Amino acid sequence: MAQKIEPRVPRGMRDLLPEQMIRRQYVIDVIRGVFEEFGFEPLQTSAVELSETLLGKYGPEAEKLIYHAHHVGGKEQLALRYDLSVPLCRVVAMYPNLMKPFKRYQISPVWRAERPQKGRYREFFQCDADTVGSASMLADAETLNVIYEILTRLGFKKFNMNFNNRKILNGIGQYSGVPEEWLGGLYRSIDKLEKIGLDGVKQELKTNQIPDEVIERLLNLLQIEGENLAVLTALRDKLGNYPVALEGIAELEEIIGYLTALGIPAEYYKVKFAMVRGLEYYTGPIYETTIEEPKMPSITGGGRFDNLVGMFMDRSYPATGTTIGIERIIDAMEEMNAFPAAVGKTTAQALMTLFNAQMRPESLMLANLLRQAGLKTELYFESDPLGGQIRYASRKGIPYVVILGPDELAGEKVTVRHLALKAQQTVNRAEAAGLIKQWMQS
Amino acid sequence: MAQKIEPRVPRGMRDLLPEQMIRRQYVIDVIRGVFEEFGFEPLQTSAVELSETLLGKYGPEAEKLIYHAHHVGGKEQLALRYDLSVPLCRVVAMYPNLMKPFKRYQISPVWRAERPQKGRYREFFQCDADTVGSASMLADAETLNVIYEILTRLGFKKFNMNFNNRKILNGIGQYSGVPEEWLGGLYRSIDKLEKIGLDGVKQELKTNQIPDEVIERLLNLLQIEGENLAVLTALRDKLGNYPVALEGIAELEEIIGYLTALGIPAEYYKVKFAMVRGLEYYTGPIYETTIEEPKMPSITGGGRFDNLVGMFMDRSYPATGTTIGIERIIDAMEEMNAFPAAVGKTTAQALMTLFNAQMRPESLMLANLLRQAGLKTELYFESDPLGGQIRYASRKGIPYVVILGPDELAGEKVTVRHLALKAQQTVNRAEAAGLIKQWMQS
Repeated sequence: MAQKIEPRVPRGMRDLLPEQMIRRQYVIDVIRGVFEEFGFEPLQTSAVELSETLLGKYGPEAEKLIYHAHHVGGKEQLALRYDLSVPLCRVVAMYPNLMKPFKRYQISPVWRAERPQKGRYREFFQCDADTVGSASMLADAETLNVIYEILTRLGFKKFNMNFNNRKILNGIGQYSGVPEEWLGGLYRSIDKLEKIGLDGVKQELKTNQIPDEVIERLLNLLQIEGENLAVLTALRDKLGNYPVALEGIAELEEIIGYLTALGIPAEYYKVKFAMVRGLEYYTGPIYETTIEEPKMPSITGGGRFDNLVGMFMDRSYPATGTTIGIERIIDAMEEMNAFPAAVGKTTAQALMTLFNAQMRPESLMLANLLRQAGLKTELYFESDPLGGQIRYASRKGIPYVVILGPDELAGEKVTVRHLALKAQQTVNRAEAAGLIKQWMQS
Repeated sequence: MAQKIEPRVPRGMRDLLPEQMIRRQYVIDVIRGVFEEFGFEPLQTSAVELSETLLGKYGPEAEKLIYHAHHVGGKEQLALRYDLSVPLCRVVAMYPNLMKPFKRYQISPVWRAERPQKGRYREFFQCDADTVGSASMLADAETLNVIYEILTRLGFKKFNMNFNNRKILNGIGQYSGVPEEWLGGLYRSIDKLEKIGLDGVKQELKTNQIPDEVIERLLNLLQIEGENLAVLTALRDKLGNYPVALEGIAELEEIIGYLTALGIPAEYYKVKFAMVRGLEYYTGPIYETTIEEPKMPSITGGGRFDNLVGMFMDRSYPATGTTIGIERIIDAMEEMNAFPAAVGKTTAQALMTLFNAQMRPESLMLANLLRQAGLKTELYFESDPLGGQIRYASRKGIPYVVILGPDELAGEKVTVRHLALKAQQTVNRAEAAGLIKQWMQS
């Protein structure tokens, strides 16, 4: 057949081996469960898109990272999915009969040829939930509710859902009084407030050649601190002359009202009016989540993007949603050792042993009996010495072993062994699964 | 931002909209459940492979269908995954410390630029379970057991797991006495036995210039019919001089013994000793499954491939497994209308209505109450007239509506409506979820 070649993956790509995949599936199952609980519907777009669908959407730097594809005789310009938002907007435009609001989730790989580095891969999963076709702040509050549920169920105890509103940023831009073309630099500077503090921002603004009197005005604003509603009240005082800002402030107040009604504790969310995300993209509330333990960059990002669908059709739809950064969430959970004990190293919960070749049919049948009782069961295929079979289970992380030897066979019994406790019990065949389940719960 | 472009997908690609995805996820969840029940572990390989990993593995015709990929500044020759078997073998070679047997499953898209036609797409999911590192026929019997469980749980009542052994085919080749280079044509001809009958095969062999006396000998063999073990006994009579055939016959007898022990009814499997699959590839037992209703080409395909891993490393490992053709399975289930009633058009089971803007916090809270009770619940975001909200649920396929109007609010009640029965009941808030669950079960 083929000549022998070295087994390798492309630069920046990786395989997910079983132990990693079992953890990943646990996280994905929790996220998918929450998405569906809120009525989000699954969508899957093709991994290969027409290049024209992707190009011109992400900016020139990002565009260089797109993977292009072709096949013999193919005439189309093709590219691999770069994110899930642009395909969503294409789908909304392509199927105008989809009922609105269209609440969809998608959990799929995307490809970006970024410089590989620790924890960053060129193929990674995105995990998005978006609501297309509703301008209601209820949809934005629901997004935060979904994030709260997901992170809580995954066991995160300290996280901050930070939010702002693009309209407040627009108001700040007007308040600063600088010309349009300076605004990008201005926003980039104030976005660093958290990281570099007021003095740092001042320095940044100076470097960006923002006039001193504007810097003065901005610092006056950026000093506002405190409890969420108090911050919004103080902002309303300063930005009262800018209707767009007032609109943004009212939207955030509305969202906070809903979060309060939902009983989400106030320590989990915070208005950060200097936070900037995707200037080209978002039009209303924006949100991102950071976790405190372990310290991580943002693990969710999202907001309202009322204009994006309009790139593909004559009308647009209001839309809002979030990405859940599962790659970072998995990293954080690994670091915290936050996976439940039931999420093991392997799928099998029990190993059915094989004493000798003659007893193969008996062991086969018993393995199926355990499966029918709801136990994930691997049958050992070779009649190696029993000690070896038990060591196999132990090394592989299978917690229980069901032994059928000649004595057990004669007495219509089996011996069930609890590897961690080094304990074992001989019981009737029909009782084996029950005993293991009892052990699993204790 | 970008200029407006027509929303389209590449030729042969498609999006899976929610209703399709919900059905697909049901099928995938059943398959994944069975795989894990047998101790198969999840694996995920990168979608983008080095071209050298894929080239030279599938034959020149198939190779033309491979998608190639590249990115700006990239120096590697890249290609999209064409199947899951070659990446599995690469993984086995790349991670020599993976414990054996390595039983993995993978459910992932693959890409092939085939001519698009009804029901065939250029991106489709493969769904494989393989055991690497065991030569035991128990592993082959387990593959058939897995297929039987999956198809039974999905509701298929009439299907045939057909099997043969590459070694029997080798024996038939020797028995025919034709030179090596004629064997490909010979196998291709006898593979058509089922379809074109004995006379047809005779004609095919003649066309392929097989000498008359050889045709005579072959037809003598191909006439063997009957119950599985009787067929094998008759074959042993005729092929007694060819040790490789005897080995293959003994392997199938062993597998049949295990299937019998497992209680799998004999009408579900059949020895088809003229069945040929992937001559380059398989080395032992081979199997494929057809369903009778609706009539479908093979919906599973697999067998033992003891040499494939050796393409990537100095040693090889015995290996066996199957592909479950989920695209065809989904098509067949659509045609038979075989999805359980609980697999609905949408994810949400209940719609929580919104009477007016003032009652948003109450409706929000109630929606979360329903979710906490385990009901997938969509909150209606706009305060449209109630009739419109109910019509929305009905058109979307949400079966139950929970109504909170001023009367209900005053009495701390809710009204729960069963859309299909056009029945409704006013109950305490805490009872709403229970009532809906009761309706769901009746």
